[in-house]
Amino acid sequence: MQTIELIGLIAAMLTTGAFVPQVYKVFKSKSTADISLTMYTVLFVGLVLWLIYGIQKDSIAIILANAVTGILVAFVIIFKIKYK
Amino acid sequence: MQTIELIGLIAAMLTTGAFVPQVYKVFKSKSTADISLTMYTVLFVGLVLWLIYGIQKDSIAIILANAVTGILVAFVIIFKIKYK
Repeated sequence: MQTIELIGLIAAMLTTGAFVPQVYKVFKSKSTADISLTMYTVLFVGLVLWLIYGIQKDSIAIILANAVTGILVAFVIIFKIKYK
Repeated sequence: MQTIELIGLIAAMLTTGAFVPQVYKVFKSKSTADISLTMYTVLFVGLVLWLIYGIQKDSIAIILANAVTGILVAFVIIFKIKYK
């Protein structure tokens, strides 16, 4: 593996990992009052586009980062709709 | 410009844009009690690594997305330290 792909993978772990506590919090509390559905929907569309970008660019770091974060964000959106 | 770079730029605008209201909120309220310094520090390191990745890969979308988000996150960290 190239050094730059390794840097990308570490970057992916950090930026996705930083997001986990928020999702865990929502998952545990079932409370989503302070969460903006618009913001998370915009974020989700952006992540899907990044995923397409990563697939086209053949970048495993971009694909992994955005696929995992996309799943986490989708969970938050589902919780927001379910428990609003 | 290639179509895929345009998709990347739209992705960059959406994922960075989704983050703006949070930063604006902190900026306006000067309240950062609910914000985790650890999370934002991890996020910041991740964004810097993505920036290095984007520069190496010569991707204007990745460079722009992570530079702008990195500046926004740095503002939140500065506010967190200043108003804790």
